[in-house]
Amino acid sequence: MARWEPDARLRLVRAAVELFAERGYDATTVQEIADRAGLTKTTFFRHFPDKREVVFAGQDIHTQLLSDAIAGSPASATPLAVVGAALDALTGTFTKDRQEMSARLRIVVDGNDDLRERAAFKRVALAAAMAAALRKRGVPEPTAGLAAELGLRAFDQAYEEWLVPGQSRSLIDLARHALHQVKTATAMLDDAG
Amino acid sequence: MARWEPDARLRLVRAAVELFAERGYDATTVQEIADRAGLTKTTFFRHFPDKREVVFAGQDIHTQLLSDAIAGSPASATPLAVVGAALDALTGTFTKDRQEMSARLRIVVDGNDDLRERAAFKRVALAAAMAAALRKRGVPEPTAGLAAELGLRAFDQAYEEWLVPGQSRSLIDLARHALHQVKTATAMLDDAG
Repeated sequence: MARWEPDARLRLVRAAVELFAERGYDATTVQEIADRAGLTKTTFFRHFPDKREVVFAGQDIHTQLLSDAIAGSPASATPLAVVGAALDALTGTFTKDRQEMSARLRIVVDGNDDLRERAAFKRVALAAAMAAALRKRGVPEPTAGLAAELGLRAFDQAYEEWLVPGQSRSLIDLARHALHQVKTATAMLDDAG
Repeated sequence: MARWEPDARLRLVRAAVELFAERGYDATTVQEIADRAGLTKTTFFRHFPDKREVVFAGQDIHTQLLSDAIAGSPASATPLAVVGAALDALTGTFTKDRQEMSARLRIVVDGNDDLRERAAFKRVALAAAMAAALRKRGVPEPTAGLAAELGLRAFDQAYEEWLVPGQSRSLIDLARHALHQVKTATAMLDDAG
C-alpha cells in the first residue's frame, strides 16, 4: 500500500508543469511525472484520470468556489454584484506563489491544440455552473448567463494581466478592475462611436 | 482524374450526417461517407482533412459572412446594431431545407465529447473573428468582444429554437428576437431582483 501523501496532488501538478515546460506536453509520460514528484504511477491515477487532466486540476474547486459565493450573497445584491463576490472568492485563492507556475502552464496550454480545445470546453462548463447558481437565486435567463459570461471575461482579462512577468498587483485587484471595465463597456454597446 | 463534382462538398456533408445519425459518429468511416455520396475517398480528402471537419463544414463561410457584414455596416451604427446586421447576413443563409439536417447534426455533436469540445472551440474562434471585425471599425475592447459574445448568444438561442421539431419561424426572425432579449437582459445586470 502506498503511504498517505497529503500533498500528492499538488506535487503531481508541480512536477507535471515542470516537465511540460522542459520537454513539451506530448513528450512527457505519466511515469515521468510520478517519478519527478517522488510518487508512483498508481498514486498519479488515484488523483487524475489522465495526463491531460493534470493541467485542469483546479477546475472543480474553482466551480465550487464560484457557486458557493453566488449562493451565499445577500438577496439584495444585483446579478453583477453577486458575480463580483464570486470573483473575489475565486481570485483570492490565487496567491503570489502560484503566479510563476500558472504562467508556465499557460504557455503549455497555448502550445497544444488539444489542450486549448479542452480549456475552451472547461470555460463553457464554468460559465454554465455560474449561470445555474444565479438562476437558483431567481435571476432569469438570459440575464443569468450574461452575468456569468461577464464575470468570466473579467477573470480572463485579469488572469492574462496577472501572468505578465513582473506583475505586482494581486489577481483579486486586477479582477475587480476588469469587472468594472466590462460593466462600463456594456453601457457602450448601443452607443454610436 | 476525378471528374468535376460541383456539389461534392454538400453531398459529402449530407451523406456524413445520414451515416452519423444511422450508425453513430465513431462507427462511420470516411470510405462509407464517400460511398454513400457516390464519390471517392480522394474527393473526400480534397474537401475535408478528416471525418470530424465534415461536421463543421460551414464554419469558414459563417466567419466570412459575419466579418463582411460587420465591415460593410454604416459608420453610424452602434456595436449592437452592427452585430444585428451580421446576424441577419448569417441567419439568412439557413434556409428551411437545412432545418432537418441541422437538427440531426446537433444530435450527433451532443452525443460525442470530442465533437462537443471542437464545437466549443469553433464558437470561440467565431466570436474572436467578430470581435476583430468590430475592432477594425474602431470599437474598443472590451466592448467589441462583448458585442460579439452577445451576438453569438442570440444566435445560439435562436438556433436552439429553430431546431425544435415543428418550428415554423425562420432563423433570421428568431435571431432578431433573441438579440432583442439579450439586449434587454443587459439592462438588468445591475438591477436588484
